Amino acid sequence: MDPDAVAKAFVDHYYNIFDTNRAGLVSLYQDGSMLTFEGQKIQGVQGIVGKLTSLPFQQCKHNISTVDCQPSGPAGGMLVFVSGTLQLPGEQHQLKFSQMFHLMPTQSGSFFVFNDIFRLNYA
Amino acid sequence: MDPDAVAKAFVDHYYNIFDTNRAGLVSLYQDGSMLTFEGQKIQGVQGIVGKLTSLPFQQCKHNISTVDCQPSGPAGGMLVFVSGTLQLPGEQHQLKFSQMFHLMPTQSGSFFVFNDIFRLNYA
Repeated sequence: MDPDAVAKAFVDHYYNIFDTNRAGLVSLYQDGSMLTFEGQKIQGVQGIVGKLTSLPFQQCKHNISTVDCQPSGPAGGMLVFVSGTLQLPGEQHQLKFSQMFHLMPTQSGSFFVFNDIFRLNYA
Repeated sequence: MDPDAVAKAFVDHYYNIFDTNRAGLVSLYQDGSMLTFEGQKIQGVQGIVGKLTSLPFQQCKHNISTVDCQPSGPAGGMLVFVSGTLQLPGEQHQLKFSQMFHLMPTQSGSFFVFNDIFRLNYA
């Protein structure tokens, strides 16, 4: 399958879960996964999903501007680089963000998120 | 050595070369390296440095806002995620950008850029 199509499908899937049922992101991380969220480092699926579900808003909406991807090496991983905006409830302005994912293949032929780095891009 | 210190040192080194002598970036890429620059995909050190040296400005200045890093897996690679602004000659406003590097170890114990994805973050 075309890597760009896989990356786009992953990004749509990820933010759809994030925006509708953040706890469901548990299926996309594993114990070795790492998240750096606005500079805070968290390792392991439980800690990562705990962080994401405890963010101080109930609903949000990601709007994707760009998705770039590259293979990360012989292990079959894929780097996915996203830019876009984030709409929070009660906020008039959208927040710009950038995020990168390093996807690694699972034994079942799917992908999980091994690396995840998120930053808001303050104007 | 502390990975965050290595990442910060790489970033300072990379943008110092970029801002003073772009052709010198040839030492940081290899034949298998990949660059995605504003969506354009380029592979190999010659193509990458050719692209970067042909950008339509002579001088620029990167100002770094954030540097995040994570290990990318058992091969000893490091993911480096940068946000900042770019000052171009004759431009009143700085351009916001995000960039990610996947550094892989060289045989001499240093690092080279295996993956590089760059995006301007338009306001």
